[in-house]
Amino acid sequence: MVLEDIGEFGLIRRLQTMAGAARLPQPSADELRLPLRIGIGDDTAAWDAPGFTELFTTDTMVDGVHFTQATSSWQDVGWKAMVANLSDIAAMGGSPFYALVTLGLPEGSSIASVEHLYEGLLDACAQYGSAIVGGDIVRSPVFFITIALTGATRTQPLLRSAARPRDHIAVTGALGGSAGGLRMLLEKLRLDPATASALRQAHLRPSPRLAEGRLLAANGVRCAMDISDGLVDDLGKLCLASGVAARLRADDVPRHPALRAAFPGQELSLALNSGEEYELVFAAPPDVMSSVCRVLPAGATVVGEVVSATPGQVTVEDRQGRHIPVTDGGWDHFRHSTGGQRRS
Amino acid sequence: MVLEDIGEFGLIRRLQTMAGAARLPQPSADELRLPLRIGIGDDTAAWDAPGFTELFTTDTMVDGVHFTQATSSWQDVGWKAMVANLSDIAAMGGSPFYALVTLGLPEGSSIASVEHLYEGLLDACAQYGSAIVGGDIVRSPVFFITIALTGATRTQPLLRSAARPRDHIAVTGALGGSAGGLRMLLEKLRLDPATASALRQAHLRPSPRLAEGRLLAANGVRCAMDISDGLVDDLGKLCLASGVAARLRADDVPRHPALRAAFPGQELSLALNSGEEYELVFAAPPDVMSSVCRVLPAGATVVGEVVSATPGQVTVEDRQGRHIPVTDGGWDHFRHSTGGQRRS
Repeated sequence: MVLEDIGEFGLIRRLQTMAGAARLPQPSADELRLPLRIGIGDDTAAWDAPGFTELFTTDTMVDGVHFTQATSSWQDVGWKAMVANLSDIAAMGGSPFYALVTLGLPEGSSIASVEHLYEGLLDACAQYGSAIVGGDIVRSPVFFITIALTGATRTQPLLRSAARPRDHIAVTGALGGSAGGLRMLLEKLRLDPATASALRQAHLRPSPRLAEGRLLAANGVRCAMDISDGLVDDLGKLCLASGVAARLRADDVPRHPALRAAFPGQELSLALNSGEEYELVFAAPPDVMSSVCRVLPAGATVVGEVVSATPGQVTVEDRQGRHIPVTDGGWDHFRHSTGGQRRS
Repeated sequence: MVLEDIGEFGLIRRLQTMAGAARLPQPSADELRLPLRIGIGDDTAAWDAPGFTELFTTDTMVDGVHFTQATSSWQDVGWKAMVANLSDIAAMGGSPFYALVTLGLPEGSSIASVEHLYEGLLDACAQYGSAIVGGDIVRSPVFFITIALTGATRTQPLLRSAARPRDHIAVTGALGGSAGGLRMLLEKLRLDPATASALRQAHLRPSPRLAEGRLLAANGVRCAMDISDGLVDDLGKLCLASGVAARLRADDVPRHPALRAAFPGQELSLALNSGEEYELVFAAPPDVMSSVCRVLPAGATVVGEVVSATPGQVTVEDRQGRHIPVTDGGWDHFRHSTGGQRRS
């Protein structure tokens, strides 16, 4: 049996079973205990430390798989690699602290390219209050970057597994810009400057929703995750973790404003399936939802509700409640191999 | 300028300067502070948490660079990848807690190979009291594994930068077995079964010196690191970080007992330069050293002393105090490119 037979998530489930069966850490020699709260399967791991909950995540980008130099500068790659990790901390309602950066570098890598990469990494750190405190540099036939990031929260971490039937589902921001931007760059589309700039920004310079995540956690929301593989796909994972299903109202899904000019008629499909958005999708009872949406400075958009049905199922409906088939569902590195970029 | 011009450590110094110039993390929204104690340049990063010091390290192995399947089973690769990280925690005098495991997997990777890898990872976790709590799985043209590991200590972390002139220098265990084992495997040498088994164990199943590291820290030692690139090379790094030099007495350097039968006449060279030993090298004033060597269950061997000379310089002397040239100094992934395995 090879990887393509069971996919990334099939493999993760098997490894999760193996790791779960192994015994937990012994207390250290001096009786310090840091009880595990969240293991494999959420946006970050988490454990209890004295006075706070510590968060721990990692994310990797491989040249030719997660990006290409044809569409991304090294600064962009650094920014996005750090943002992918920051976004996991945001999805738990936490604040980022310290990062370790591992670089796999092919022979003949230019020092300037590595320094440009670091400029992007450090830009994101400076903007969102993190710091690079170490790492590893190794030789590799292909360039890759792996970041491990710690964070902390004093509130309850936001979980994927806390959605309940009748919760409302909402998203921050507007969706589809990252996939639209990637398509513009890959197909070298000529768009008006404002549209091109907005889509480029959405794809190459996404923002982690750290302030939003903290506001959600502080205002009674218990369930969230970040959108890295597409709204429908990620909401499906959230529902599976919670043992529930979801109904999305297509007309209510917010679309990136530049999509109308660039890809008329395809806004919904892009908004439903665009990965690397790094917006948050979250669920909460209606009263919590309506108050928290008022607290968020840029608001949030209610797009559907949680229902009791096959766990993990996400249906999209039109205004009349008719089912809209979703043809392009998310991203699995292995099962949906398309030989290069993340799909839109 | 390309990487080979300045090497791994030249690049790290440049990135350290860039990262150091960036501002440190903002306190989180709820005023939690975790002040950084150790950044880039020691075995782990470290920061102060309420009641303990947290440690954070990462280490990577790339197929064809750090191991080959010709000499290592997947279980061996998993064991060693985890031990390399555990050893960094040991070198600070800490205890390991939680690990994230990132796998870069080529198309067509067999599920069985990944599960065997996890068996090795989990064996090491079970033996040394750590746990895998998450990670990332990505597609990559080459197999790699990156582990990020947290740890903790309530004592002062052992530093590379704390050696002082007139300190004695000691090592745990006996050295050279890892390089000897690698050579035996690569050259398919036929050795007597006991020798072969001991060398295989030394290369494929090294032990992190966690208990020893904690005993050092608890008994007044302030300066240590683990031997991952060779005694002479790593001691040079320790000396550079401390602004001192070192004199090693060749006759006193403990050699792995299997080397005499397998590689007669080459024991010293192997013991001085073997990487991936994961023994600890440490420095302390003579009185501290003599008492701590009695506390360690398996003892330790004093092999030289710290002197005031060109920072980072390590000289090896024979019994008469004559200088012995060291021809094969350590390992830099880029400057000493040998097209494959870590050198002995």
